[in-house]
Order: sequence, then structure tokens, then C-alpha cells
Amino acid sequence: MMLRTLIVALMLALPAAAAELRGTGDLGVAVERTTGSLLVLDRSEHAAIGRVEGLGDLSHASVVFSPDERHAFVFGRDGGLTKVDILTQDIVGRVMQAGNSIGGAISDDGTLVAVSNYEPGGVRVFDAATLAPVADIPTGSRTLGLVDVPGRRFVFSLWDAGETWVADFSGGPEPAITKITGIGANPYDALVTANGRTYIAGLFGEDGLAEIDLWQEPLRARRILDGYAKDDPALPVYKMPHLEGWALAGERFALPAIGRHEVLWMDARSFEEVGRTAVHGQPVFAVARPDGRQVWVNFAHPDNDTVQVIDTLSGEIVHELKPGPAVLHMEFAPRGNEVWISVRDANRIDVYDTASFEKIAEIPAESPSGIFFTARAHRTGL
Amino acid sequence: MMLRTLIVALMLALPAAAAELRGTGDLGVAVERTTGSLLVLDRSEHAAIGRVEGLGDLSHASVVFSPDERHAFVFGRDGGLTKVDILTQDIVGRVMQAGNSIGGAISDDGTLVAVSNYEPGGVRVFDAATLAPVADIPTGSRTLGLVDVPGRRFVFSLWDAGETWVADFSGGPEPAITKITGIGANPYDALVTANGRTYIAGLFGEDGLAEIDLWQEPLRARRILDGYAKDDPALPVYKMPHLEGWALAGERFALPAIGRHEVLWMDARSFEEVGRTAVHGQPVFAVARPDGRQVWVNFAHPDNDTVQVIDTLSGEIVHELKPGPAVLHMEFAPRGNEVWISVRDANRIDVYDTASFEKIAEIPAESPSGIFFTARAHRTGL
Repeated sequence: MMLRTLIVALMLALPAAAAELRGTGDLGVAVERTTGSLLVLDRSEHAAIGRVEGLGDLSHASVVFSPDERHAFVFGRDGGLTKVDILTQDIVGRVMQAGNSIGGAISDDGTLVAVSNYEPGGVRVFDAATLAPVADIPTGSRTLGLVDVPGRRFVFSLWDAGETWVADFSGGPEPAITKITGIGANPYDALVTANGRTYIAGLFGEDGLAEIDLWQEPLRARRILDGYAKDDPALPVYKMPHLEGWALAGERFALPAIGRHEVLWMDARSFEEVGRTAVHGQPVFAVARPDGRQVWVNFAHPDNDTVQVIDTLSGEIVHELKPGPAVLHMEFAPRGNEVWISVRDANRIDVYDTASFEKIAEIPAESPSGIFFTARAHRTGL
Repeated sequence: MMLRTLIVALMLALPAAAAELRGTGDLGVAVERTTGSLLVLDRSEHAAIGRVEGLGDLSHASVVFSPDERHAFVFGRDGGLTKVDILTQDIVGRVMQAGNSIGGAISDDGTLVAVSNYEPGGVRVFDAATLAPVADIPTGSRTLGLVDVPGRRFVFSLWDAGETWVADFSGGPEPAITKITGIGANPYDALVTANGRTYIAGLFGEDGLAEIDLWQEPLRARRILDGYAKDDPALPVYKMPHLEGWALAGERFALPAIGRHEVLWMDARSFEEVGRTAVHGQPVFAVARPDGRQVWVNFAHPDNDTVQVIDTLSGEIVHELKPGPAVLHMEFAPRGNEVWISVRDANRIDVYDTASFEKIAEIPAESPSGIFFTARAHRTGL
């Protein structure tokens, strides 16, 4: 009896009994905001294969993955940081690390998970294996635009102070902090290019953006696209939210020009505007297919039932589709042959072939928003 | 005592003991040429976790991965195509598909595996799930430089005919073939850029290379770097083997200039030479760290005990190391924080931190050559 108990305990301790032996390179998750759950996705099967509940407030939630593509780290709006095993579909760790947070990142070596917080303002860093606290970086400001860059570093911006900080953990758990001051008024979001070189912050209080070349010492910010909306009297305030939607397509960035029915094209070397494409509505995300040949655009209400596809070479719209009500997010298969689209108010994720534009599959989901594939584990700045 | 024995026996008997439930994003393989085996690697543990034998002649072998990062397809020099389950470490399929072959590729959707053959000359395409034959594309020529590009297409070149062909499987198992003729004499190797747009073939019979922009219809080849060695009387024949070693570092390609102790820099837009860096020996591979900030270079005999690191911005050598005898290959972790180096004649793989240049680990291996991480599954043209 004692022996049997021991054996049962031993078997329970082995996760293999519940979860199937499988590769994890074709998995992903979709955020189900209203139910505070994650839907686990199988790219190969075009199917949902499970659901993980109990993740708290998932409005504006984002997800990063461990290097082995087994664990998802979910950043909730309520300050919750949850580690999910997507093979066993269990929550394996959860901390309420702040009162109000926005976004997270994982270090290039996969050992550190960082979260940027509004309240209390700053960045907190955790051990990716255990979620034990590693470092607390108070900033005295709402903090956002957090990204990882090579060399065990994180970059983030301070809304109230108008600064960008680099926290370098290459020397251990005590980060070396470099502060770039005076980047401009009220950075509200930021991105880093896929190579981890260029950090760009949108400025709520300025008619332009701040660009930092992380390869050039000493670090400093320069203004780009400065005053480019000044000649448009119809547009007294010209902002560009959703910087994470910027797309590097070939030699140009595609920018969703919020407030106008346009996508802007910016040269990736000079950071100067080189063209515009008129689109169906006010763009929210402009996302490049991984090869950069196409840019897929979704739109704000009331045009959020529509997606348009722009050919990168010509800048012309080559396809339009109407997936359904409230298209919130688009995630490409890592090699670009498919795009997965969350259609929130249809409670569905649709999968499209990006060459033929045919719909391949429909997957039921509860008010899906963000879709994240495990291939992100291998990329910088996502 | 009996209890302990039983528990050990139980653990051995459980399938989990043979194949552990785990993510596959941090796995890889190293080719062991002399023993015809694959060493299975765990990036997170800096360790070898198994060996798969019976793969035939692995000289000049290469490997691609299934989208789920579970299966490796190994292309042997003897025409053998072997499918290996890296979780269970079993051979799950093997075909002798030709008498003499060189390189393979997997389609963007992961359903087709293609092999380019010298004898009989052409490309054969197989179902990735079953290894059943799908298509045979005889060319009447030794065929090489095979790569996958978006849209379920493969591109390859014909040594004898001086042509490049595109085989498009988007319509089904009968490929649509487009032939680009007159690209130049005797293409001997080729590469495609990471975005799948630019195909470049080295020409054994010409003092230049052929470049094809796969985004521009009709497809045609143009000559690049034409005659650029003509002004060097010391160098009557100037070739550039190992095109797969080309590195896109920032806005420039780094090219190993075989025959000289130099790395060439070529502008990625204009394809014109923009500089050279003098290096320790005759370079074999010049490989960019994934962020493009560094280029790591290894060398031909007798300098093949050395590796040099070039800073992309300055073009200067910033570090030199001597891992040991016969450095054959360098593979970066997908986010670039580590590089794994095969030191064949030391029977060892060394792992280095690319920021500090410190050696992190040594892994015993039998005459290792190529190292391939599963993250390649998510990339084009590898």
C-alpha cells in the first residue's frame, strides 16, 4: 500500500501522463480578454487544443515565450505576471507584481522576465525559471515601451520624465542603468527594430518621434518625422499609437497613420517619409508578412470588420477582405505562408493563406484579441 | 532496497524516461561526419542529450527542420534523405533518393522536402510527413544551390546549363517551372536572402555572380560584382565558395573572399563593394550574429584553429580566439547571445558568450562539423 501510494505519487509528479509528447515550434496562444483565459493553438492542425483560465485582467495583455518554446509569460493589465506551461496547459507560476502594468519582455538568454509598470512606476525583473524577484527599478514615472535588446539588456521609457533608460544585466542581478534624458514630452509607446538596434518612442506631447541608435555610444535621442503633420490644418493633433504595429517591409517601414486613412512609408535608413497609401479606414496595425512582401492593415471602429493587403513594391492595395466584426489582431506564421486573424465579436480566429488569400480554417474562441506564436521566442524586441 | 530498485525500474519503463516531455525550441543537432551520426543538442543545458546513428555518408551534410521543431531532415552526400525524431531520437523515415546529392530545403508550409542531386541531375520532392515521392524534376544537369522561398516554391541552379529554375508548388504536386536562362557559366552554389527576395549564384566560369530579384516579374538574372577581381594580377582566378556563409550585417553583406585574407563588404541595396577587412587567413564562413552587430569568421587550413570577430560598424576586428584544431562551423543561438563552434579535431563543440567572448561550455562530440538549431524551422532559405 505504501509502495502503491509512492508509485502513484511518482507518476503524478511526472507531467508526461497528461500531456502529449510533441514539438512546440508550431504552438501559440490567443488572449481571451473577457474570460481572462488563454486559448492554446496548434498551427499545424489549425485548431485550438486547450484553454488555460485564471489569468486575471487580460485587457491589453501581451505574451512572451521561453527559449524552449514551452512556457508563455502573460502580462496582464492588473499587474499580474503568469507563467503558463503550454504543453501541460497549467499555470506554473503567478505573481501580482504591481498595481497597474503595461507590457513585458524576456532577456535574450531567456533567464529574465521584465515588466513595465504605471503604478508603482518602474520596471520589475523576475527570474524566468521561478518568478522570484531579481531586480526592482523604480523610475518615479509611469513606465512603458519596454523591450529586450541583445546583451541581457532592457530598454524602456518614462512618460512623466521624458526619458529612456537602458538596464544592462550582463554583469549580474544589479543592472547598470544608462539614462537618456530629454527625449521629448510624454513618450507613450515604443518599439525596437528586429535587429535590436533602433529604439523609437512615440511622443504624445510632440509632433514627431524620438529615435535612439543603440549601437552608437554615447546613447542619445534624435527627433524623426519632426513636424511632418504641421502642413495639414485638418489635423491639429497627429498621433501614432500602436507603434508595435510598425512593419519593416523591405527597405521601408509601414506606419499606421492614426487619425488619417493612410499608411505612411518611411525609409529604414534615413527615417524620412517616402510615400503614403490611402486605405479603407483609420489603421490600427500595419503588419508586414515576415518576408516583407505584403503589409496587412486592420482598422479602427467603425471600419474594424475589414483588412486590406498592400503590396510592398507598388504601395498599392492588392486585396481586401471582411473577416467579420472587430478584427483586433493579425499574427503571421513565422515563414509567412499563413496569417491568423482574431475576429473578436464573431468569437472566432480565421486562418488565411497569404498567397491565395483563401480562408483555410475557422477556430472558435471567446472574444479573442492578441495572438502569439511560440516562434516569437527566437526573435528580439517582441 | 527493493523499493528503490522498483522505482528505478518504473522510471525506466515509463515512456517519459525515453522521451521526456519538453519544449523543442532549444534543441539542435550536430553532424558527426566520420561516424555517420547526429548528436542531439540542448541549448539550455549546454549539453548533448543523445545520438542518432545510421545516417550514411554525412560529408557535406545539411539539415532542415519541421515547423513544429520536432523532426530533422538530414541530407547526406550519398543521396540519403533521413527523417529523425529529435524528441525520441529515432530515425522515422529514410530514402536513398539519388546517387549523389547536395543540399535540401523545406517548403514554407512545412509539407514538402526537396533535394538537389548531381546524379541523376535534378530535384526530387518528397512529402515531409511520409517521405513519399511527390515530384521529380529532371534537369539534365548537376543541380545545386537549392533554397526554399515563400509561396511553396523552390529555387535551384544548373551547373551544366547555366540556368536557375523556380519550381512553384502552390497549385499542387505538379510544379509550375520558370526557367531563367543564361545566368552565366557554371553556377556552383547559391543563397537566398533571409526575406526570400534575392537569389545569388556564384559562377565558377565567370568573374562575378548572378543576382535574381524574385519580386520582379519577369524573372531575370543580372551580373553583380562583375570583374571586380580583374585589377588584381596576383589573383588570376578569384572564386567565392561557401555562399551560404554570406552574412547580412546591418545594411551590408559580409563575404568571405576565398583566395585572399579578406572579408568583403557589399552594400545590400546596390550590390556594390563598399570595403574590405583584412583577416587572419583565408576565410571560409563569415557569419553574422543574428542582430548583425558582429561577423564571426573562420578560416581554411592551416589557419583553421582561429576565429575572428569583426565589428559591423567599424569593420575592425574586435576579438580573436583559438578554439582548437579544425574549426568547421559556427551556429548562433537564435537571439545571438551565444555561438556554438564545432572544433572537429578536438572532438568538441565549444559554446561562447558573444558579448563577453567567454567560453561557457565544452561538449564532447565525434569529429563535429555542421551545427543546426531548431530555430531554423522558422526561417526562410536555410
